[in-house]
Amino acid sequence: MPASEGPVSEILETRGHLMDTGILARVLDDVLAYGGDYRIDRLDVGRLHDDETYARLMVSAADQASLQRLLMRLQTHGVNQVDPGEALLRVVERDGVFPDDFYSTTNLETVVRIGSSWVPVEQPEMDCGLVVDIGRVRTVPVSDIRAGQSVVCGAGGVKVVLPHVDRSEGDDFGFMSSAVSSEKPQSLLLRQIAQQMREVKADGGKVLWVGGPAVVHTGAAPAMVALVENGWVDVLFAGNALATHDIEASLYGTSLGVDLAHGRGVEHGHEHHIRAINQIRKAGSIGAAVEQGVLTGGVMHAMVRQGKPFVLVGSVRDDGPLPDVITDVIDGQRAMRAELPGVGFAIMVATMLHSIATGNLLPASVPLVCVDINPASVTKLADRGSAQAVGIVTDIGLFLEGLARELVPGWTNA
Amino acid sequence: MPASEGPVSEILETRGHLMDTGILARVLDDVLAYGGDYRIDRLDVGRLHDDETYARLMVSAADQASLQRLLMRLQTHGVNQVDPGEALLRVVERDGVFPDDFYSTTNLETVVRIGSSWVPVEQPEMDCGLVVDIGRVRTVPVSDIRAGQSVVCGAGGVKVVLPHVDRSEGDDFGFMSSAVSSEKPQSLLLRQIAQQMREVKADGGKVLWVGGPAVVHTGAAPAMVALVENGWVDVLFAGNALATHDIEASLYGTSLGVDLAHGRGVEHGHEHHIRAINQIRKAGSIGAAVEQGVLTGGVMHAMVRQGKPFVLVGSVRDDGPLPDVITDVIDGQRAMRAELPGVGFAIMVATMLHSIATGNLLPASVPLVCVDINPASVTKLADRGSAQAVGIVTDIGLFLEGLARELVPGWTNA
Amino acid sequence: MPASEGPVSEILETRGHLMDTGILARVLDDVLAYGGDYRIDRLDVGRLHDDETYARLMVSAADQASLQRLLMRLQTHGVNQVDPGEALLRVVERDGVFPDDFYSTTNLETVVRIGSSWVPVEQPEMDCGLVVDIGRVRTVPVSDIRAGQSVVCGAGGVKVVLPHVDRSEGDDFGFMSSAVSSEKPQSLLLRQIAQQMREVKADGGKVLWVGGPAVVHTGAAPAMVALVENGWVDVLFAGNALATHDIEASLYGTSLGVDLAHGRGVEHGHEHHIRAINQIRKAGSIGAAVEQGVLTGGVMHAMVRQGKPFVLVGSVRDDGPLPDVITDVIDGQRAMRAELPGVGFAIMVATMLHSIATGNLLPASVPLVCVDINPASVTKLADRGSAQAVGIVTDIGLFLEGLARELVPGWTNA
Amino acid sequence: MPASEGPVSEILETRGHLMDTGILARVLDDVLAYGGDYRIDRLDVGRLHDDETYARLMVSAADQASLQRLLMRLQTHGVNQVDPGEALLRVVERDGVFPDDFYSTTNLETVVRIGSSWVPVEQPEMDCGLVVDIGRVRTVPVSDIRAGQSVVCGAGGVKVVLPHVDRSEGDDFGFMSSAVSSEKPQSLLLRQIAQQMREVKADGGKVLWVGGPAVVHTGAAPAMVALVENGWVDVLFAGNALATHDIEASLYGTSLGVDLAHGRGVEHGHEHHIRAINQIRKAGSIGAAVEQGVLTGGVMHAMVRQGKPFVLVGSVRDDGPLPDVITDVIDGQRAMRAELPGVGFAIMVATMLHSIATGNLLPASVPLVCVDINPASVTKLADRGSAQAVGIVTDIGLFLEGLARELVPGWTNA
Repeated sequence: MPASEGPVSEILETRGHLMDTGILARVLDDVLAYGGDYRIDRLDVGRLHDDETYARLMVSAADQASLQRLLMRLQTHGVNQVDPGEALLRVVERDGVFPDDFYSTTNLETVVRIGSSWVPVEQPEMDCGLVVDIGRVRTVPVSDIRAGQSVVCGAGGVKVVLPHVDRSEGDDFGFMSSAVSSEKPQSLLLRQIAQQMREVKADGGKVLWVGGPAVVHTGAAPAMVALVENGWVDVLFAGNALATHDIEASLYGTSLGVDLAHGRGVEHGHEHHIRAINQIRKAGSIGAAVEQGVLTGGVMHAMVRQGKPFVLVGSVRDDGPLPDVITDVIDGQRAMRAELPGVGFAIMVATMLHSIATGNLLPASVPLVCVDINPASVTKLADRGSAQAVGIVTDIGLFLEGLARELVPGWTNA
Repeated sequence: MPASEGPVSEILETRGHLMDTGILARVLDDVLAYGGDYRIDRLDVGRLHDDETYARLMVSAADQASLQRLLMRLQTHGVNQVDPGEALLRVVERDGVFPDDFYSTTNLETVVRIGSSWVPVEQPEMDCGLVVDIGRVRTVPVSDIRAGQSVVCGAGGVKVVLPHVDRSEGDDFGFMSSAVSSEKPQSLLLRQIAQQMREVKADGGKVLWVGGPAVVHTGAAPAMVALVENGWVDVLFAGNALATHDIEASLYGTSLGVDLAHGRGVEHGHEHHIRAINQIRKAGSIGAAVEQGVLTGGVMHAMVRQGKPFVLVGSVRDDGPLPDVITDVIDGQRAMRAELPGVGFAIMVATMLHSIATGNLLPASVPLVCVDINPASVTKLADRGSAQAVGIVTDIGLFLEGLARELVPGWTNA
Repeated sequence: MPASEGPVSEILETRGHLMDTGILARVLDDVLAYGGDYRIDRLDVGRLHDDETYARLMVSAADQASLQRLLMRLQTHGVNQVDPGEALLRVVERDGVFPDDFYSTTNLETVVRIGSSWVPVEQPEMDCGLVVDIGRVRTVPVSDIRAGQSVVCGAGGVKVVLPHVDRSEGDDFGFMSSAVSSEKPQSLLLRQIAQQMREVKADGGKVLWVGGPAVVHTGAAPAMVALVENGWVDVLFAGNALATHDIEASLYGTSLGVDLAHGRGVEHGHEHHIRAINQIRKAGSIGAAVEQGVLTGGVMHAMVRQGKPFVLVGSVRDDGPLPDVITDVIDGQRAMRAELPGVGFAIMVATMLHSIATGNLLPASVPLVCVDINPASVTKLADRGSAQAVGIVTDIGLFLEGLARELVPGWTNA
Repeated sequence: MPASEGPVSEILETRGHLMDTGILARVLDDVLAYGGDYRIDRLDVGRLHDDETYARLMVSAADQASLQRLLMRLQTHGVNQVDPGEALLRVVERDGVFPDDFYSTTNLETVVRIGSSWVPVEQPEMDCGLVVDIGRVRTVPVSDIRAGQSVVCGAGGVKVVLPHVDRSEGDDFGFMSSAVSSEKPQSLLLRQIAQQMREVKADGGKVLWVGGPAVVHTGAAPAMVALVENGWVDVLFAGNALATHDIEASLYGTSLGVDLAHGRGVEHGHEHHIRAINQIRKAGSIGAAVEQGVLTGGVMHAMVRQGKPFVLVGSVRDDGPLPDVITDVIDGQRAMRAELPGVGFAIMVATMLHSIATGNLLPASVPLVCVDINPASVTKLADRGSAQAVGIVTDIGLFLEGLARELVPGWTNA
């Protein structure tokens, strides 16, 4: 990357609950971490804790490229240029390759200055480029960019808007913005998640689930089925494993039913899952297997019966896979992306791979709860930039049963 | 340790479900691991899976001291000498010091050949010596041995009896002998533990609880209180932390109550717990604080009200501590030991230190369930010789609430 | 699955170190776990610990389908039918679908009775079918099976041969067959792994590495580069992440170099990795980027320079990806499979996804070491049937540096 | 706790790097978390990142008791009253009980206004009271307070001074203030810790080690012995377990030596450790055992030979214990406290219990490194208020060997 001619700087500003949320501290810390420097030119502190704070600062960096990268970084905190100017557009020369200085997106609400008006970015998604097309701006991943498209370059002409945090509502759900912990009253969390889901549904939003095979292992499939059948699962993202284990449990009910019912913890016979997959391949698809009466129970069966969409994306460790599994991961991302519009709440259960994948695609405005017994899964999601993620370290089986009890009146795991 | 004159050997035998339980494999493995060798002289295998197997083997070691240690080791698997002879007794010369070759106990049912009759050992406990006194044999820890007492030395004259495993009852509780796992149907486990507790109580046995502070942190105190008030907690072993957090939550209800009720996850004020301790010290004891109306809620309050004993043993990280805490750990072990007779079931929740301590003292005949969200706590207990331990990796809060729902009809965490 | 007419049985036999290795115990346990029953007809126990044991048992199950599944299961322990007869072949009717009762493979050495001679299976791999073609038998995954091919069905005519364990060599490497642990002398393990790698190379075998991005995060890239440059890495399997982080560290050396050199632990700028990917996409491939002088350091650069093959297989969480990444996971498995012939040792470092994927493909005869700081990664691999896996819970950075010191004389991380 | 008459408030101030360190954000957050409210009256922000910031704020709470607790809380962040006035003293009425409103200490440098002069607190330690005695002020834990002593009550007249963080030196050691991580270049950390230890020793300070039994399990004893013998261990805090395992490894060298040397991972014979303890009890003490030639190697032997003090404090799970173990935990704390003066650096290795215990006693001014392969141990220490703690998640064995290589020229684990 060619060095510029010398130190360069830019004037930035930001407004919001910068002090007690620690945002300003993180902003200043990032400036230093990126090798830049800052000068605070103005700071109008909210005197009362409900007041907003306004900060204006000058940041500098060794060269223009570094400065532009720093500016993009700071935008993830809602810090924008005072005078962003017009967006700089460049034409893509080759399919699948951005210009060197392309603007790399956050997952926050973003507006772009085109022809002296601010155009909102459609479908915010992180790590994409911004394609401008007849007055519209949308995110495009590098794999989908095509020669001839116009892409925003540099940080100029771009503004990011932080989600508004209404602190007075902290009592409802905001508390969950605190760190990952296994030491929180889980019953309370359960109730709050149920409440959140009710509100999203009431507003016409969709509830997206992302699940791993432990949903089945932990014996939580009946609870999950109850949730599906009662309309609490609008879309399901998963891999080959969740669907296979679920189908295996349904198809080989006698043996595996005993297993789950008695908690034997039998290491699954190596041949059962591949046989289950073979059965569904023979039927043609999961839906066909339901139709043909081959598959008569379980989570996938319930999804088919409810007419709810699912996206299964493969991974390199898959056996089979099931015919419904999308084996090309980039195609898989496209299929997931296509289901996101309208999603108002996302819940990720016992899966690290598909959770991170979904977190990468979701706009920051969608609340996201990640539930796992392994603290690492939960932290990893938050670390990767899904700042809106709330982590709950708990037992999947008991959690899903508790959620079913909250949302499905009269449900018991008898 | 002085070397003996050359290879020595002994003929051993054992009977039971040696094959499908893997015991024989472990026995042979241990012989090699201890530097010895074996020859299988006879093996009458149970042909059907309900039949018992009988094995006779010769084991050899480089010297007498090694052989004796190996014999003691094999006794932990129920392997005894064919011809154990009489027990060798030596008189203790100094307080708190065993003879060099003292017999180190297992926690299994044990009998000692004294004057040509087999005398059962009272209160089996691991890592003790066996004191013989007018025809009785009892376990004594090294710290309690006194000069002049007669102690069994060497492995001769000692037989260990493995707990009888009735495999036909495997469906009730036996499954739990499988390894630690977070991937088991937790609801089923809950139901089985509740059933086990009902049976122990029906037989007049006591239920021992060992608990850590996460019982309070996870918001499970109301469930725990319900269990205490309904007679499901006969004895409680804990440290300063569980009692302090519980009392702190009761005393500073306004602030911490809000905390627990809203899940704020507030790092507890450093001054609250020391203030809570100070209040109880002023009252004189937890019981006195209940009597004086200072302490009006929580787990410890419920224990006092129910007239159920608790043993709080201190640790080096304690603040305060509460006046009820036994600060000398060896005295603490004695106090715990004194509560063990009559215990028919032990459940350990969210505490590694006191769980291991209790595991060290319990006879192997007492079923023991260890519940923690951290797999390491659960494995550690099993690793230390508490082979009867069943580990459950789950969320403490949801687990205790589930148990309360099973055992206390009508209970809800409303 | 249609039930058969009633209880059916089969006579099985096995030979080897069945007792002290616990294999027989596991066999009997599996019979019960699969709902079958057994009768031991003969047991010639090795009297000395170097002698082999021979066992003959009758196993029974409720119906033929259950019995066949049980027989396949027991073959994973090296238990075969006394009278296996000829293999039953069926013709595949549709692409990608096996006959219902297809023989599902283990990853063990296997022979099939075809036309009264025993034919060895080429390239053992688990969860495949066995295709018979002009006297040859090879494993084929369900996704690659084609209509018209002949596939072995049922357990008849198939024998599995357990790997020979030479217990007298236990001191060299065999100790590592013990369970996963973070409490083992890591230096000793390091030395033994180095020794194992030297022997494999001396025998003309290839050393396969499977790596995750933590190789770069932990600062171990220089050690890894030294290992590559000195010929200790013959093939590398990884995902988009390892390669991207490695390339990112090379391309943005100034900023990220500072980071790694000073351990700042800066959360990587969200734009850096996507920019690194874009650079390589522009170059066309990693190899092209090396050739064009764009990429001048790091692990991938060293692989290219040494002319050693690498297979990068994508996952659904990938950004970009790099142009070398195979985005179709089934194609990715095929590419990995193609590199396996000749591999004599596999080492998996800090990656769960690609480790399990590789474990699925590897014959059981290839020794496999899995290194991670997270015990869960290590256990998961062993749980999934890669019984030959040795798990080491340790720090990746210090481990790779230690290995470099062992294998590359004079190497220091200065 | 009796409620006061209504909302009360106080004016506070603080100065330092409040912005980019996030301290001010935490202060404001704590005010709200404690149920109080704030108004920022003045904020002089450092314009450049090296400038200090000055903040004055009014905080209010519902009653006087709440306000005083809030004020004490804020002092942990270095926020003091603008007009603290004189300290209020009360006379203790009963041994072991503080007045209700006693000032509960932090572990920070603190001064108390007595008779119009500021008196520094001797030996800062958290969760203590402040005893005033003829113009001197010292920390006293609740268990050591005696009737008749004068104790500071309320937050008035007390000021806390935050440790000065010289940000320009960040490159040396400051980076380690970042969060716990297993993904940091461990070699670099090793080098920096070695450097820190050299500087502390050069300044005449003592290096305190706190260790758990994994020091022995991981095979790191030789490295630890080398560190002791070369003067890098001035004091050692541990429990019965570290010393016992170390002594057991020395006494039963033949069997356990083989074990450690070959990594067998043999579950230690239950009788070995109790036999080792018995031997030392017979000798009278560890020192006596060294003198008598009974104990001839290992870490404890090296400590005795070097004439360096160690404090072993018991826990309720101990067997034996060794005669040197202090079984009363409060006495144990006193013994540890007595060794703290002069300590300039503390390193805690593979022990949660004794690390937290030591963290409770140490002034915040002593840098503290906590090393464990289990992230939970490391986080727990930091969570309990030892804010100066730096956590390193790594392999103990490789870490200690690396440290020995850094500090002991020519050392190898050959």
